[in-house]
Amino acid sequence: MIRSIFYQPGKPLQTDLEPGALLKAFRNRRGVLWVDFVSEPPEACEPILQSFGFHPLAIEDALQQTHSPKIDDWGEYVYLVINYMRLNGEKKDRGAWDTEIDELDIFLGPNYVVTHHDHPVPAMDAALASIQRDQRPLQEGADHLLYKIIDYVVTDYMPIVERIDEEIDEIEDQVFDRPTPRTLERLFALKRVLLSMRRILLPQREVLNKLARDDYAVIDSKDRIFFRDIYDHLVRLHDLNETMRDLVGGALDTYLSVINNRMNEVMKTLTIITTLFMPLSFIVGFFGMNFFLPRSGDAVWEWMQRPIFYIVLAVVIATPTFMFRWMRRRTWV
Amino acid sequence: MIRSIFYQPGKPLQTDLEPGALLKAFRNRRGVLWVDFVSEPPEACEPILQSFGFHPLAIEDALQQTHSPKIDDWGEYVYLVINYMRLNGEKKDRGAWDTEIDELDIFLGPNYVVTHHDHPVPAMDAALASIQRDQRPLQEGADHLLYKIIDYVVTDYMPIVERIDEEIDEIEDQVFDRPTPRTLERLFALKRVLLSMRRILLPQREVLNKLARDDYAVIDSKDRIFFRDIYDHLVRLHDLNETMRDLVGGALDTYLSVINNRMNEVMKTLTIITTLFMPLSFIVGFFGMNFFLPRSGDAVWEWMQRPIFYIVLAVVIATPTFMFRWMRRRTWV
Amino acid sequence: MIRSIFYQPGKPLQTDLEPGALLKAFRNRRGVLWVDFVSEPPEACEPILQSFGFHPLAIEDALQQTHSPKIDDWGEYVYLVINYMRLNGEKKDRGAWDTEIDELDIFLGPNYVVTHHDHPVPAMDAALASIQRDQRPLQEGADHLLYKIIDYVVTDYMPIVERIDEEIDEIEDQVFDRPTPRTLERLFALKRVLLSMRRILLPQREVLNKLARDDYAVIDSKDRIFFRDIYDHLVRLHDLNETMRDLVGGALDTYLSVINNRMNEVMKTLTIITTLFMPLSFIVGFFGMNFFLPRSGDAVWEWMQRPIFYIVLAVVIATPTFMFRWMRRRTWV
Amino acid sequence: MIRSIFYQPGKPLQTDLEPGALLKAFRNRRGVLWVDFVSEPPEACEPILQSFGFHPLAIEDALQQTHSPKIDDWGEYVYLVINYMRLNGEKKDRGAWDTEIDELDIFLGPNYVVTHHDHPVPAMDAALASIQRDQRPLQEGADHLLYKIIDYVVTDYMPIVERIDEEIDEIEDQVFDRPTPRTLERLFALKRVLLSMRRILLPQREVLNKLARDDYAVIDSKDRIFFRDIYDHLVRLHDLNETMRDLVGGALDTYLSVINNRMNEVMKTLTIITTLFMPLSFIVGFFGMNFFLPRSGDAVWEWMQRPIFYIVLAVVIATPTFMFRWMRRRTWV
Amino acid sequence: MIRSIFYQPGKPLQTDLEPGALLKAFRNRRGVLWVDFVSEPPEACEPILQSFGFHPLAIEDALQQTHSPKIDDWGEYVYLVINYMRLNGEKKDRGAWDTEIDELDIFLGPNYVVTHHDHPVPAMDAALASIQRDQRPLQEGADHLLYKIIDYVVTDYMPIVERIDEEIDEIEDQVFDRPTPRTLERLFALKRVLLSMRRILLPQREVLNKLARDDYAVIDSKDRIFFRDIYDHLVRLHDLNETMRDLVGGALDTYLSVINNRMNEVMKTLTIITTLFMPLSFIVGFFGMNFFLPRSGDAVWEWMQRPIFYIVLAVVIATPTFMFRWMRRRTWV
Repeated sequence: MIRSIFYQPGKPLQTDLEPGALLKAFRNRRGVLWVDFVSEPPEACEPILQSFGFHPLAIEDALQQTHSPKIDDWGEYVYLVINYMRLNGEKKDRGAWDTEIDELDIFLGPNYVVTHHDHPVPAMDAALASIQRDQRPLQEGADHLLYKIIDYVVTDYMPIVERIDEEIDEIEDQVFDRPTPRTLERLFALKRVLLSMRRILLPQREVLNKLARDDYAVIDSKDRIFFRDIYDHLVRLHDLNETMRDLVGGALDTYLSVINNRMNEVMKTLTIITTLFMPLSFIVGFFGMNFFLPRSGDAVWEWMQRPIFYIVLAVVIATPTFMFRWMRRRTWV
Repeated sequence: MIRSIFYQPGKPLQTDLEPGALLKAFRNRRGVLWVDFVSEPPEACEPILQSFGFHPLAIEDALQQTHSPKIDDWGEYVYLVINYMRLNGEKKDRGAWDTEIDELDIFLGPNYVVTHHDHPVPAMDAALASIQRDQRPLQEGADHLLYKIIDYVVTDYMPIVERIDEEIDEIEDQVFDRPTPRTLERLFALKRVLLSMRRILLPQREVLNKLARDDYAVIDSKDRIFFRDIYDHLVRLHDLNETMRDLVGGALDTYLSVINNRMNEVMKTLTIITTLFMPLSFIVGFFGMNFFLPRSGDAVWEWMQRPIFYIVLAVVIATPTFMFRWMRRRTWV
Repeated sequence: MIRSIFYQPGKPLQTDLEPGALLKAFRNRRGVLWVDFVSEPPEACEPILQSFGFHPLAIEDALQQTHSPKIDDWGEYVYLVINYMRLNGEKKDRGAWDTEIDELDIFLGPNYVVTHHDHPVPAMDAALASIQRDQRPLQEGADHLLYKIIDYVVTDYMPIVERIDEEIDEIEDQVFDRPTPRTLERLFALKRVLLSMRRILLPQREVLNKLARDDYAVIDSKDRIFFRDIYDHLVRLHDLNETMRDLVGGALDTYLSVINNRMNEVMKTLTIITTLFMPLSFIVGFFGMNFFLPRSGDAVWEWMQRPIFYIVLAVVIATPTFMFRWMRRRTWV
Repeated sequence: MIRSIFYQPGKPLQTDLEPGALLKAFRNRRGVLWVDFVSEPPEACEPILQSFGFHPLAIEDALQQTHSPKIDDWGEYVYLVINYMRLNGEKKDRGAWDTEIDELDIFLGPNYVVTHHDHPVPAMDAALASIQRDQRPLQEGADHLLYKIIDYVVTDYMPIVERIDEEIDEIEDQVFDRPTPRTLERLFALKRVLLSMRRILLPQREVLNKLARDDYAVIDSKDRIFFRDIYDHLVRLHDLNETMRDLVGGALDTYLSVINNRMNEVMKTLTIITTLFMPLSFIVGFFGMNFFLPRSGDAVWEWMQRPIFYIVLAVVIATPTFMFRWMRRRTWV
Repeated sequence: MIRSIFYQPGKPLQTDLEPGALLKAFRNRRGVLWVDFVSEPPEACEPILQSFGFHPLAIEDALQQTHSPKIDDWGEYVYLVINYMRLNGEKKDRGAWDTEIDELDIFLGPNYVVTHHDHPVPAMDAALASIQRDQRPLQEGADHLLYKIIDYVVTDYMPIVERIDEEIDEIEDQVFDRPTPRTLERLFALKRVLLSMRRILLPQREVLNKLARDDYAVIDSKDRIFFRDIYDHLVRLHDLNETMRDLVGGALDTYLSVINNRMNEVMKTLTIITTLFMPLSFIVGFFGMNFFLPRSGDAVWEWMQRPIFYIVLAVVIATPTFMFRWMRRRTWV
């Protein structure tokens, strides 16, 4: 789908222009044009982009997925790549998050913004709707339109951050109360999502920093503070990401210590039971040997039987008592 | 609550000015004005800040929580964000510290300081009280007032650092004497607090460094050394933080080694007991087999019974002795 | 094997020139010459390279394997080292990948490209074939020819990246379902391959960055954007490498947690069985002592035998029940 | 204690000047003055330092403990902070080293050096004594005196380094021969000492680097090479520190592997004993069941008893033999 | 031993000059002099070095062992420190490598090279011998002589690298086949050697980089490319070192996983045996209680004895079968 919106001062807003009108609007320096290629096959985009006169390498970059935010200054226009992240609900197995990172290619000229993305981006739809309601960003020029678009894309990270935050809260409770291997899988999944988010936030921050600092022919120097504002927003997202990564790291440490602690208790129980009952088993086994069979007629045995029995009984009772004290002194129980 | 204090040379100090007077004082270049917005809703702050002529983006930053210390030079005024940390006593479960990190937004102009914070900050109250007692910082201009305010905020980290230090001391003793899983939780909590403190100290240090080094229209170049002083203070806080993080790291290592050592002892005990008594149990079980029943009339058995019994007894005594020696040679006991 | 291709405007393409013609073509500033030394012994290459007038140190570097991508500007020509990676199928033991990293030495002059490699490189063969089919890169000069060659070499990393990606997918499934020590070996092997790939990507990226940014006499400044394109490609390869290293790291974490979890279950089973049956064994051993032999004529024993038996039976049944409950409360089972 | 030494060309050396004479000497640009405040309370130092005309912030820094080596250029004088380390013998519990890190505050002017430290520093006493014996450093100016003082302080790190080195040697032997939890504590203590030493060496190196490179009004540019010499000394101390930290790290690795190895042997022994004797115990228990009682008059039993006994005996001997072989094949024993 | 070699154009090479001739040769700007102090005591070197007019601090650095490669530009001459490494065969206990790192001090003047080392260095002997055979480096000046010397020293790292490589190969095989604690010790020893090698390669690389880039009065700018060549050599050595450190790291990971895997098998065997035989032991113990004694005349018992025996037998056979299946389902066996 190719969406377009064309603003001319004092005229009604035109939308979804015909291919011929598109090129004319593109060349009309007094208006502001936004062309948005949504999930369009390369074969359909290429001729239009070529007719706009973009460099073949820039067009190739735009039509291929390259995933690395960057900014190229081609003089008359700027080509930039921004990432966005989609979260399709936690549908996948093993706690994995169904996130997808896609790329948004943008050409910014003095009087136009051309955007290209392989999948529908809700933030773009929202930006388009907002601009149709309130044409002010168009009135202030193409660079202001770009600011609006990027602002919508960056704002869209927030709900993802919030969902991750909730997930962390939930897991933190679980870790202390009833940690299971499943908890660990969820923690690993969170760690992965945060890492991939961090990987796209950092270069994106750099791109915005360049927009806010460097000198581009197509960006009005007094509009730079708006890009600075988005830059600050990305700095904050990055800070939140770091904080959440710390929380996940802390939850992992806690998980491991809880599990380890439980295992230590298991081993202690094993040892205590073995230590208490093995000597006793030996004693009762000893007196189960057939040398101790009551012999009718063996007077000594008859006579000794009763006191030996009581001694054995005493040993059987004393041994665990003594063992228990010894273990207590070693702070095992 | 909106607090304000207005100083004019040769006139009595005015406090809590009316909205109208506030704007007049703001524009009076010969006086020094401090306006402090405390836990005021954005709706109340915004019109006043707008009437002061601050840039919309700066106002938006001030009214939203952004949590990242930074400094923006807007020419006629400087906008800066500083963090402060509150410690509400160790009330929470599992050793977690109830700390909160909040943001303090400051506008510094040639003749005014405007501060904004969402929660009451004791350091601000103390700064206000001190200035009412001793007006010298006001006499020396708005930048000196700013120095005083930041100084109070940074000084307020010290009691937190001291409480953490005490906690570390206490835990270090516990780690050697009677480490429990609870000790570990306290260590993790300390680690988290120190990490979050570090995260706000570093960018704050950077902000103060800029105040001390860079050229701002609203800061008298000879007052920079005061900001340099706070910068040194933050460097020291950061050093203390690093040292305490090392101590916590060392305590964690020690905890793990104490626990591991105890577990090794538990396993050794298990093995020693098993190694000693299992062969003995087999021997006494062997002679408990019904093949060894005294058979009346079996002369050979009758005759052999006594020597066999003594041999068994000898084996029963010799086995553990031998085992013990073998384990001693392997430095197990 | 020494392959050469010589292009002159308006003349047919010459290939595999004689040694004499080679030097003449080398000096013909109006043509474009590509000489490719494939697995040629140093003794054969050295005199030709010397006849081209390259510096002895540059020739020495080219003929020795040095393995570090770099770029040396010798004024009239540029000497650069690029790496390529070969994957010979997963033939080796223990999951190790049979990868080899070799070096490609390139001399770029105003009208020539001289390449040298110790092993046949499929990417070079492909580049040569493509140039014979379509002479445009030759028409645009030696720097464009270099771009073409490096482009082919860098594109050749992609199939390796894809094979590694497949391997990771396969192992990720295995890790959850039936992890074996063999799985771990494969993960270690992957980690090693990715690490060695990363080690050559980084300096290569730096070399391309220099080609795209710095000023070289032999590179037309308007052709730099082509090297910038390869640079972006290498940035992307590096990003993919980082992502795959994260995936391998995550799979390793998962493997270890799955194995650890299984071991914990093993230990718990051991403890549960021991805890249940050891006390029981003691009880039945106790009543197997020969003091409890039925004595004919001992009326008390006769009378007590039956109730004692039932009590023992009750204890034998009650003990495991109680133990099981106790373990359940501690979340062991 | 306030010590002072005042040198004037051609006059005898004056020591411990009266307060009045001190200020006069301070202002005498033709002499060289060294004032040393040793463990003097702030109340006593402050008025003197103020009379010398130092900036209030610099005086505040000097009288408070700040622990971070730094250098502040105040134009007419330089204020610098250096650390020194004291080792009071290994008196403390658990292998902890009784080290203390204190701060040495120095004011360097064109004709004076003012030093301040809260505790007696042997290096300072030695420097003072040396200067009284040999006045050359004084003749060459205050910056040369400063070099001498810092040289003495830095040289004093060497004996500490040597004691740590001996301790490492001693522990390395212990680790292989008879590692105990106490060995681990000593290693942790060493690690801590080396870390705290590293923390003060790094910023101190930076201070000396500044003295050797930067332009200070009070330092003769041809004397910079002396500070460069101390800088090199600190670089070497840092190298030694790194090397020793590696050695401690290696000893820790070895300790853990020795302990782990011993624990593995313990577990193997447990398993071997259990694996050998549990089946045997079952067999002898089986034939201890009362179904196998010799029944007088049961001819079959009488007849079978002997062969069964020999079979049981054979099984009892064969089982451990077989088990042992199986374990050997798995390289357990 | 003080070795010297003096070259004058058109005259025969002089070696081992007398002290008087040495100074004269040193001052003869038309010749090239190399003086080599081998294991000479400081008392012997100092007066000669002083007579050459070197700065006292430089002489002190040369005569003391400082171990940190560095380069000091003293204007008329350059003082530099290079490290070399000696490998005395693997004689020491516990796999430790008997390596020694020593320092080579070099003074480079316009017409001389003065070298000083505390131990004989084979590379220096080789350089001396080579120069006596082929005087070309001398003809091209002192800086070329220095290049030759450093080249020999750096080339001498290669055999050490090769021996370490062989050792790694050997250990890698061992790790899979029959890992022992001794294997681990060898890996730790390798790790240590590689680390100490890395520590001297890095600053040395920096020194050569300075020689190749910076402007020194005593180095002909067109000779810098030779130092660049050694720099590239050191870069490669560093790369090899990194690769070998990776291999050692990988072997360590593998070792630990092999050991851990074996321990897991040990624990599983323990658990399986215990789980199989403990219930059986209880059963046979139960029927060994004296309540089950055959009572002559108790008809019920007589009648029940046979079926109970068969039931017990069935249970004894069924229990392990069932247990084994349960464990198989949990992928334990």
